[in-house]
Amino acid sequence: MSPITQSTGAPAGTAQVNVAIVGASGYSGEELVRLLLHHPSARLTAVTSRQQAGQTVAQVFPRFASHSLARGLRFSEPNLELLARQARVVFLALPHGVAAEFAVPLLQAGCQVIDLSADFRLRSAAVYREFYAHEHPAPDLLAKAVYGLPEAYRDAIRGASLVASPGCYPTSILLPTLPLLRAGLVQPGRIIANSLSGVSGAGRKAELDYLFVECNESVRPYGVPKHRHLSEIEQELTLAAGRPVVIQFTPHLIPVNRGILTTLCLEPAHPLPGTEAAAFSEQVDACYRAAYGAEPFVRVLEGKALPDTKNVVGTNVLELAWRVDARTGRLLVMSAVDNIVKGASGQAVQAFNILCGFPETAGLL
Amino acid sequence: MSPITQSTGAPAGTAQVNVAIVGASGYSGEELVRLLLHHPSARLTAVTSRQQAGQTVAQVFPRFASHSLARGLRFSEPNLELLARQARVVFLALPHGVAAEFAVPLLQAGCQVIDLSADFRLRSAAVYREFYAHEHPAPDLLAKAVYGLPEAYRDAIRGASLVASPGCYPTSILLPTLPLLRAGLVQPGRIIANSLSGVSGAGRKAELDYLFVECNESVRPYGVPKHRHLSEIEQELTLAAGRPVVIQFTPHLIPVNRGILTTLCLEPAHPLPGTEAAAFSEQVDACYRAAYGAEPFVRVLEGKALPDTKNVVGTNVLELAWRVDARTGRLLVMSAVDNIVKGASGQAVQAFNILCGFPETAGLL
Amino acid sequence: MSPITQSTGAPAGTAQVNVAIVGASGYSGEELVRLLLHHPSARLTAVTSRQQAGQTVAQVFPRFASHSLARGLRFSEPNLELLARQARVVFLALPHGVAAEFAVPLLQAGCQVIDLSADFRLRSAAVYREFYAHEHPAPDLLAKAVYGLPEAYRDAIRGASLVASPGCYPTSILLPTLPLLRAGLVQPGRIIANSLSGVSGAGRKAELDYLFVECNESVRPYGVPKHRHLSEIEQELTLAAGRPVVIQFTPHLIPVNRGILTTLCLEPAHPLPGTEAAAFSEQVDACYRAAYGAEPFVRVLEGKALPDTKNVVGTNVLELAWRVDARTGRLLVMSAVDNIVKGASGQAVQAFNILCGFPETAGLL
Amino acid sequence: MSPITQSTGAPAGTAQVNVAIVGASGYSGEELVRLLLHHPSARLTAVTSRQQAGQTVAQVFPRFASHSLARGLRFSEPNLELLARQARVVFLALPHGVAAEFAVPLLQAGCQVIDLSADFRLRSAAVYREFYAHEHPAPDLLAKAVYGLPEAYRDAIRGASLVASPGCYPTSILLPTLPLLRAGLVQPGRIIANSLSGVSGAGRKAELDYLFVECNESVRPYGVPKHRHLSEIEQELTLAAGRPVVIQFTPHLIPVNRGILTTLCLEPAHPLPGTEAAAFSEQVDACYRAAYGAEPFVRVLEGKALPDTKNVVGTNVLELAWRVDARTGRLLVMSAVDNIVKGASGQAVQAFNILCGFPETAGLL
Repeated sequence: MSPITQSTGAPAGTAQVNVAIVGASGYSGEELVRLLLHHPSARLTAVTSRQQAGQTVAQVFPRFASHSLARGLRFSEPNLELLARQARVVFLALPHGVAAEFAVPLLQAGCQVIDLSADFRLRSAAVYREFYAHEHPAPDLLAKAVYGLPEAYRDAIRGASLVASPGCYPTSILLPTLPLLRAGLVQPGRIIANSLSGVSGAGRKAELDYLFVECNESVRPYGVPKHRHLSEIEQELTLAAGRPVVIQFTPHLIPVNRGILTTLCLEPAHPLPGTEAAAFSEQVDACYRAAYGAEPFVRVLEGKALPDTKNVVGTNVLELAWRVDARTGRLLVMSAVDNIVKGASGQAVQAFNILCGFPETAGLL
Repeated sequence: MSPITQSTGAPAGTAQVNVAIVGASGYSGEELVRLLLHHPSARLTAVTSRQQAGQTVAQVFPRFASHSLARGLRFSEPNLELLARQARVVFLALPHGVAAEFAVPLLQAGCQVIDLSADFRLRSAAVYREFYAHEHPAPDLLAKAVYGLPEAYRDAIRGASLVASPGCYPTSILLPTLPLLRAGLVQPGRIIANSLSGVSGAGRKAELDYLFVECNESVRPYGVPKHRHLSEIEQELTLAAGRPVVIQFTPHLIPVNRGILTTLCLEPAHPLPGTEAAAFSEQVDACYRAAYGAEPFVRVLEGKALPDTKNVVGTNVLELAWRVDARTGRLLVMSAVDNIVKGASGQAVQAFNILCGFPETAGLL
Repeated sequence: MSPITQSTGAPAGTAQVNVAIVGASGYSGEELVRLLLHHPSARLTAVTSRQQAGQTVAQVFPRFASHSLARGLRFSEPNLELLARQARVVFLALPHGVAAEFAVPLLQAGCQVIDLSADFRLRSAAVYREFYAHEHPAPDLLAKAVYGLPEAYRDAIRGASLVASPGCYPTSILLPTLPLLRAGLVQPGRIIANSLSGVSGAGRKAELDYLFVECNESVRPYGVPKHRHLSEIEQELTLAAGRPVVIQFTPHLIPVNRGILTTLCLEPAHPLPGTEAAAFSEQVDACYRAAYGAEPFVRVLEGKALPDTKNVVGTNVLELAWRVDARTGRLLVMSAVDNIVKGASGQAVQAFNILCGFPETAGLL
Repeated sequence: MSPITQSTGAPAGTAQVNVAIVGASGYSGEELVRLLLHHPSARLTAVTSRQQAGQTVAQVFPRFASHSLARGLRFSEPNLELLARQARVVFLALPHGVAAEFAVPLLQAGCQVIDLSADFRLRSAAVYREFYAHEHPAPDLLAKAVYGLPEAYRDAIRGASLVASPGCYPTSILLPTLPLLRAGLVQPGRIIANSLSGVSGAGRKAELDYLFVECNESVRPYGVPKHRHLSEIEQELTLAAGRPVVIQFTPHLIPVNRGILTTLCLEPAHPLPGTEAAAFSEQVDACYRAAYGAEPFVRVLEGKALPDTKNVVGTNVLELAWRVDARTGRLLVMSAVDNIVKGASGQAVQAFNILCGFPETAGLL
């Protein structure tokens, strides 16, 4: 991985970059608004939403009303020509299928696009069709898009015109597993992931399943056994392992607003007699240190600490801890992220910083 | 398994049985009070608690104040001689280690004892010492105690003087796996269990970790990788499999009052080429039907339904669903229970019904 | 108030009464299903719901799947002729405006109707129009309907053919205030009520405002300053006071599934110099004892205890406590109810018991 | 009120001020750490806590681990001499009674002290004794301390050596009422305040009452009828009204981590015939505009919007809305604050900014 430029101040002598958010009324859109309002090097020039057009950002999101820009900026109907003039970088916070319709003309008009939907995360239009149940709307762009996981694709993001920002579950699974697979430490065919997600992961949609009374005092698996996010998770694990990877993944819905807790059960590449558990532990430790020792947004916990979503909510950090289980010979890795920040909008801003040559942590600490 | 007597009315011509609860001020104790106040064939004659001695049940638990017995019955200091005179069956809702101190003299005095602690769940005093970190206080009784999981030990419970009521996690794991292991359908050495528990599982203890602010908007694993409940889980799985079983078990704390959701990842005894998934599914289906088709408190879901803790909270039912994952060749089984009812006090009352020859569902529907 | 018949068993020699629920898929309907499935003297013969027609009760509400009736009984489209043959008493759990359309023909067909909507709670069609913004659909029936608050209208309910079951906020306000007003102890013109309601009060409706993420970690007033429930509250207070009463009422939405906590600030009829506070306290105490000493579902707390919704959720009890504030000379009264039980379905079953001559607590303890 | 200096950048040419936090392990202390770690003009040089001494800020509060200072700074035992050398301004986040023991020597050593406890909020040692049940530990300092509500005491704070930061309930009540009382618009003797507080208001204390299971799905009044905060509320209202004010105040505990929602019921100074409601509304509107039009941290809502704690949590803003109720002739005012930010630590930082001559919003937007 390439070196990281880290600093929090606005880069000396750098003009601000104009940015726009298309589809800014959902939870990811709202979080993008929050991050970009405070970003030292971004100037938010347009936010669009069909339902909210005409209202100010402060009216739609009262929590931002202390910012003068939020009181002045109004939501507009999405207008491609206008957007292309207003912004150099456009964030798309739209449903899959719809995002591609915006990405194509915006790219043609010379904008850089950071898409938070699933539309450009897959390299294969066939896999897209299998998992999303419709033809890909712009298959030619798939080869051009960069998977926006900075810890894995920092260099490619630097020169990208189209960034496909990863999903929330994929982020919580890929960051803990990619280094282990690349180092050949665990068996690619025996990855079992259990994930617990807060309700904001379902989006701001008026559906009975996500009513307060239906979610509170309830815990439930869903999307079993073939959740859509498997497509991008397995694509990236396959690339890291150098051979096809299929994993077991079970998502659950839990009554918190935000956060994903993922527990991964992995098998060492070479079965562990008890006596070698210590050596394997050292290899895992070294692997994570090499991969994440210098990463600003991955925190490998030490000592007895275990991840807790409350320690990452509102931040762009993924927290992880691991244990070699001497009784079973397996490796447990647990991660926690804010599904809307590192799992969506924060990660998109991190990619934006790389794209624009800003310090990678700008606006994110 | 033996036939189940099922009916809800009070048995004709049967006198009520006097019962007492020792340690009735915790969450399991409170639930025992609720169940026994309403039980058609039990008369609650004594409740003890050092902290609450002198107060009425209605004062300590205002939610029961509509019951005249709750307004009249007072908590007392535990007094063994008095208890032995007041009750034929005594429920112990005490911490492990303490329960044994009561069980021994009560049994000597001729009472039947249903213990909700871990003290008599293990057959081996050595395993007890390994997991509970002190010598077993009454090792001679271990051979006498019956593990109080009615779906597995109904006949033995019928004649027992000492019932060791199972833990909450064990219930949520054993009921889904025992029939599969006995039928030889899954590999005993490859069981992976992820469990999510509500906060009442931690007991009514004044500790910072369980404060509202520390649990709300938080999800976290804990007790990794060697939780105490592994001892009884592996003991029972070993007995069912006919050879030593070690499992992977990761508990998590989630912000609900009650409920455990367990997701089990199992491997078929014979690896599945895709073409045999249908046959394997039929075997699993037949296995669960044979095991649980007539059980009043195990509900195998049909169609697309998946377990949800909110459907079992307040009931003595364990809900389960399973899926054969054709992509991975694994079997996923998901279960939901109320940790305080089927995972503790309800199960204890179910054992009480068996012990006394009452309909097994008495006071539990 | 008339004497209460209190006993929990099924009345000897009494045949069960056939009952039906129209609109059984909302929260109140679901609770009616729960209560009537367990009721010793009611036989649930029909449940209707346009969305759920064809499914069994157990499929729609898995938590009831342990009941054989729930597994056998299917939701049907509402059919008036059939309903009139299937049931002697019909519960309507429908939106206001719609309920009247069912009540009229069912009454003509000889059924007794217990309506949980607002359609028959008001004596004046003009007030109905003012608060519900449409013409009353059956004004002739208003004089016939009995307001179904058993503690106030027990005798009238006994002979009623149409019972208008009270709203949840009204129940939480009227039970604490009616006896005080009737006794002339407080000023009718100076009643200030603040109420906090769980989200189930909004019904099972797919609206953004009631999504988990919008309600969790949120507290907000709403319906200010003229909530619809004011109409029935002020009607009943006016009748009790013998002169027109207008009150201040502010409802709030809080993140719990169930429960209403109401805090009432009242002024003694005669201003209190400090020295008379003790005498006033005695009058209040005597007033509540006379009104509620024998009521099975109103619990006046003693000592330092204050109401807590968790002590009444799942029960048909209203809990209340009061304090004379010597500093301000005012009387504070606080009440807690389960908005879906005593605030809706439990109260409707209580009225049903009275109507049918069953013990008033049948199926409710 | 005096003009506000508003700007977010660090003041040019101003050195950073060294600050310390004594008692930094509670919820207010943690929030002070967060705010001061990010403050452009503060350098956090010491944090003390008996329980946490020796650990780094990042170990105690993992959510701050991304900040290099949090990884380096260790909690220490409180040492007065050392503190006086390390910091120019010391924040005390200690229990009442204890805070005074630190304030006295720190002031003598030349530090400026911002105390978040109740120790210096009252002008009268007798009132302190009445409400806090012990003798005031340093009555001579009461005359010197400034009540740290910036919107009311901005000028006095500027020159203060000892700032007594207001309580959370007082903030939520005083900001809405002080301007109305000063303008003579409402009757001082008829103020009724109902407040709903999140559980963090109880502090990070291991007590059964604040366990998750005891608070979740529960709503309850407490501290009725004479809560300690009444002392400072009535002191400030009395000063604003120019005559003794006694109010009705009922706090409630609700299951959210953070936030206070207060609903105030007020009576116009001159009773309103319906025809004058419009004129009174204009007076209220003008009063709030004059008081808060230029305030950065008070947001008077417009149109139909009502306060919601979720719009202020994590911010230093108090949101308020008001309605004249034409039916009752009363004025309803509703406010929402984050009890730990504007209700505690944010307000303390706001006072710090004034004290040091920094822009008042520094570190708070």
